[in-house]
Amino acid sequence: MIRVAIIGASGYTGAESIQIILQHSEAKLVYLTALPEECGAVGDVFGQFKGRCNLQIEPLDLKKLSGLADVALCCLPHKVSMGFVPKLLDAGLKVIDFSADYRLKNVDIYEKFYGVKHTDKANLARAVFGLPELFREQIKGADLVANPGCYPTGALLAVAPLLKDGLVDTDSIIVNAVTGISGAGRNPSSKFHFPNMNENLFAYGIGSHRHMPEMEQIASEIAGSDVRILFQPHAGPFDRGILSTAYSQPKGKVRSEQLLQLYTDFYKNEPFVQVRKDAPAVKDVTGTNYCHIFITCVKGRIVSFSAIDNLVKGASGQAIQNMNIVFGLEETLGLT
Amino acid sequence: MIRVAIIGASGYTGAESIQIILQHSEAKLVYLTALPEECGAVGDVFGQFKGRCNLQIEPLDLKKLSGLADVALCCLPHKVSMGFVPKLLDAGLKVIDFSADYRLKNVDIYEKFYGVKHTDKANLARAVFGLPELFREQIKGADLVANPGCYPTGALLAVAPLLKDGLVDTDSIIVNAVTGISGAGRNPSSKFHFPNMNENLFAYGIGSHRHMPEMEQIASEIAGSDVRILFQPHAGPFDRGILSTAYSQPKGKVRSEQLLQLYTDFYKNEPFVQVRKDAPAVKDVTGTNYCHIFITCVKGRIVSFSAIDNLVKGASGQAIQNMNIVFGLEETLGLT
Amino acid sequence: MIRVAIIGASGYTGAESIQIILQHSEAKLVYLTALPEECGAVGDVFGQFKGRCNLQIEPLDLKKLSGLADVALCCLPHKVSMGFVPKLLDAGLKVIDFSADYRLKNVDIYEKFYGVKHTDKANLARAVFGLPELFREQIKGADLVANPGCYPTGALLAVAPLLKDGLVDTDSIIVNAVTGISGAGRNPSSKFHFPNMNENLFAYGIGSHRHMPEMEQIASEIAGSDVRILFQPHAGPFDRGILSTAYSQPKGKVRSEQLLQLYTDFYKNEPFVQVRKDAPAVKDVTGTNYCHIFITCVKGRIVSFSAIDNLVKGASGQAIQNMNIVFGLEETLGLT
Amino acid sequence: MIRVAIIGASGYTGAESIQIILQHSEAKLVYLTALPEECGAVGDVFGQFKGRCNLQIEPLDLKKLSGLADVALCCLPHKVSMGFVPKLLDAGLKVIDFSADYRLKNVDIYEKFYGVKHTDKANLARAVFGLPELFREQIKGADLVANPGCYPTGALLAVAPLLKDGLVDTDSIIVNAVTGISGAGRNPSSKFHFPNMNENLFAYGIGSHRHMPEMEQIASEIAGSDVRILFQPHAGPFDRGILSTAYSQPKGKVRSEQLLQLYTDFYKNEPFVQVRKDAPAVKDVTGTNYCHIFITCVKGRIVSFSAIDNLVKGASGQAIQNMNIVFGLEETLGLT
Repeated sequence: MIRVAIIGASGYTGAESIQIILQHSEAKLVYLTALPEECGAVGDVFGQFKGRCNLQIEPLDLKKLSGLADVALCCLPHKVSMGFVPKLLDAGLKVIDFSADYRLKNVDIYEKFYGVKHTDKANLARAVFGLPELFREQIKGADLVANPGCYPTGALLAVAPLLKDGLVDTDSIIVNAVTGISGAGRNPSSKFHFPNMNENLFAYGIGSHRHMPEMEQIASEIAGSDVRILFQPHAGPFDRGILSTAYSQPKGKVRSEQLLQLYTDFYKNEPFVQVRKDAPAVKDVTGTNYCHIFITCVKGRIVSFSAIDNLVKGASGQAIQNMNIVFGLEETLGLT
Repeated sequence: MIRVAIIGASGYTGAESIQIILQHSEAKLVYLTALPEECGAVGDVFGQFKGRCNLQIEPLDLKKLSGLADVALCCLPHKVSMGFVPKLLDAGLKVIDFSADYRLKNVDIYEKFYGVKHTDKANLARAVFGLPELFREQIKGADLVANPGCYPTGALLAVAPLLKDGLVDTDSIIVNAVTGISGAGRNPSSKFHFPNMNENLFAYGIGSHRHMPEMEQIASEIAGSDVRILFQPHAGPFDRGILSTAYSQPKGKVRSEQLLQLYTDFYKNEPFVQVRKDAPAVKDVTGTNYCHIFITCVKGRIVSFSAIDNLVKGASGQAIQNMNIVFGLEETLGLT
Repeated sequence: MIRVAIIGASGYTGAESIQIILQHSEAKLVYLTALPEECGAVGDVFGQFKGRCNLQIEPLDLKKLSGLADVALCCLPHKVSMGFVPKLLDAGLKVIDFSADYRLKNVDIYEKFYGVKHTDKANLARAVFGLPELFREQIKGADLVANPGCYPTGALLAVAPLLKDGLVDTDSIIVNAVTGISGAGRNPSSKFHFPNMNENLFAYGIGSHRHMPEMEQIASEIAGSDVRILFQPHAGPFDRGILSTAYSQPKGKVRSEQLLQLYTDFYKNEPFVQVRKDAPAVKDVTGTNYCHIFITCVKGRIVSFSAIDNLVKGASGQAIQNMNIVFGLEETLGLT
Repeated sequence: MIRVAIIGASGYTGAESIQIILQHSEAKLVYLTALPEECGAVGDVFGQFKGRCNLQIEPLDLKKLSGLADVALCCLPHKVSMGFVPKLLDAGLKVIDFSADYRLKNVDIYEKFYGVKHTDKANLARAVFGLPELFREQIKGADLVANPGCYPTGALLAVAPLLKDGLVDTDSIIVNAVTGISGAGRNPSSKFHFPNMNENLFAYGIGSHRHMPEMEQIASEIAGSDVRILFQPHAGPFDRGILSTAYSQPKGKVRSEQLLQLYTDFYKNEPFVQVRKDAPAVKDVTGTNYCHIFITCVKGRIVSFSAIDNLVKGASGQAIQNMNIVFGLEETLGLT
């Protein structure tokens, strides 16, 4: 039985991780931490766990943690995480890190987009990008997995086979995505105040979203050459889900059936990717670790669509999928 | 042309008042104020007014206000309002006050429910409760109108004819109401953060909501004897509207048809009340100053329903209806 | 391993039942049926099961069913169900029936509210009402369980301890409830067309809802004397959940703390009931089989609140809870 | 006072047209028609008009209509409209037609996308495309105005200045748009059943949406050469609004400031277009006839955004803007 600690358990990804581990037959929660002002009984911090989980969320005590857990799901925010991950590793735990701190291999890009010095370059260098569909072999046995961002997960799965096969111009890709509001985290703000966000839809992060360099790095790795992606996120009036619509320019002539076959083959052994024959709907993946994908040609361009639940395949579900791989468990345990 | 100042224009009731006055053929906006940190061009404070209103929202300057406006729609919060209303009156303006500060005639009850000393008892004594359907004559020519609370507006219109005719036990009334979230104001909070409030519904203010004594005071005035009301509010996942479901015990035998006729007659000259032959729906009144009502008997009890838009008939619309009455204008001007 | 057939699997309760059984460690799906026009691969009928369930939904073939399954979750509509249940029982299956056909012991009341003759009075007489919190002993080993209606589940759990202890006037109970729209089923209609229902809220079934006699029958059984309930349902703009607000008149003097203690004790061994110290929120129970309850006194009356997910504790979850009890499994298997 | 008939008044665009004309100081409703099964008092067909409009919606009687009205807002569906418009014109009315029947000048394209023969080519040839920002002069005095589709309105306003100035490759434009569900009309369907559409988002009309050729025709007219547009619509969980995100490839080097200035100048006299300095939000235009636009450069491409209310600027509001122009009234009358 894998013993799981959740560091930074008081946010939405923490809650989703708790939810999943509670149903995991080979893993159990042993330690939950948060900032002192966000601590308390799990059922008080998150009403949905009343009666379902009797643990306390408590301030992190590294001494206590050491020996208590086998793995840390580290749900700390960007910039904060890299201050704790080395200590978690030193304490002998495997770490699945939810932040961006170990995703961007190019430190300059990290420092430009996140506005701080990177303080843990050694671990950054050896961290594995936790997208199992592309990096499963590296994840096996890794000590430190950088769990992908929600947008990159959906976008990369939507274009990976095209890049792998070199079918598209590497500077032609546009990813237009819409996310549900759980992606904005649990802290209230004017923008996401219910009467402001409800019945609303808007673009944000224009030309500046931090998931853009993350997509480009991994896309380039897949393609084996530099890939440029124009990524435009939007926020929509729903809780969960990301729908990504990716446009790209084929190098040569392609047909829809051929692309659909390519994708079906590429993902045929993937437990959590479904290549569909019609457009995916966010609601079909809500609450699951699945990514639904459709691809077709329109007027000489390729349009591919992917739908994921941002909190599951886009965060906690994928983290636990990674955890299962790291520990050699069946990859789908605890996940639906 | 009535010159209108809005004091405290940076909240939802301010925005709704602006919206209505912009379409009013006999009134115009001349002055908008807010706390310094909430000031700016109207179109910047509220995106929906870009190009539609070129005024600035600025800090209140009483000297500037004097002579500039004929009436103040005072949208300040409870407890704050009574500090400004005397000055607005002194400046020669008529005042329609949105707060609770001039609604509760019994100072003890006010002080108990609002937790502060009342500092303007003189004006409290002469303020008129601005529910036109019941107090139209007193509103005409009043200097200071206490605009009713949103819940009391819906609840009182749902039960007034019963009370007026002495048909029900005065301690039997239960008002179960559900409000949209614009009723909670424009300040973000954890409870009304989109991912917390969306797909949610809960009761609040159990036994303690401040609109309960307001309902009881006016209901007692209508009935001519003490009325006790058990009022239970709930918050639901929509922007606007209050649906009130009122249960009461008839003193004698009553029939549904008789009640429907009573209500139809009672409200027959009211421009903004519609007595229906079926249950009202919140969406039928959204964006309007209307109150839709249905009444029937079920198993020996009376059940009446009312739907209003909390920001219109429950706040800004009713305020402007009151303003129209005060100034002898056609009562429906600017309102739909 | 219990072999489960779902009869009428193409609606929302069918989908929810599939969802739960897929995660059940001691039960598996073996047979899914629907009307011919609603048949097909599960993943085509319900997009969310693509890749998760490879069964076909097919027209019911009783010969095929016999010997194939141990239990039928019968999700057929009212009036239709009683035509099939006897055949399912004859085929040797245990039956958990989701319809109202086996809930109302008084045939006259059934025939009045459902407008048809009851055609299976023999089985009606021996069916057990499947509310485990009240009838667990009878459910054990039963052949036919009448799974309770969604509203009665929430309402009865909110008032049962009061009735059991004889604390309230048995003709004083009012249940005001709001349901999410999944409760209206999967067939599209004008009323529940998205642009009509979104941002809307309304009462329906005034004085005539079929769950009223069901509540009264069971409440009377609990109280040991005739109980009359005024039940008023409403529809609100969310997918899942029922919030019930129950008002009742205590016979003598009661205090809030005493009631809370009574409820805490009454439900202390119940795996799926949580008595809270604050108002329950629908979102805290969404997707779970839990019922959250709060009770207090307001102005001499008792107000109790309950929240359930109408598709889980109000339908499929409770059905599987009943199935677990019938087969002597751990009661919580498959449920969260 | 312009006398207005609404032909096909029982749908959402009919209701929105009624709503607007009720507030129009120089126009009044005189005649409302619908299919026999959708007729009745306006307040019964649309609950929101109870007490606000006492007209009947009745089956169309051309003899009655003649002489009664000056203009017909023809809200009939595609393919049906062209059967009635000639008769309305013959009856001496000006016609603002909401359907696509008079928008596509190329009959072959019309017949391909709509699957029927065009039966009124004479009027098609002389119909004016009613996008006032681009064709105001032609609209003045026109007998027949083809009111633009909702998507083309938003998309064309987002890219028109670029095309007019020849700044972008004419085959590079991608329009990614998300609409609220009122755009799907008033007829219930499985897809837009509340529990299916709520919390959902999906693409549709992939490569085949009928608004694509409409966009291309007008875009080509603006550019003076053939323009190809890849248009991808999506449906999102809200009532009203379309957010269009348009991507295009500049021919040469452009800067964001320059583009913003170009747009500001292009639309500077437009009463209903606001060029913003930040991303537009759907909620800022809900219920108004405004189009909010932002434009910028990202990674060598141009991205422009527009937000409209699909039922107002995208349908009824624009129709009445056109009506005002046709009759020489102030263009903004009745509109907000």
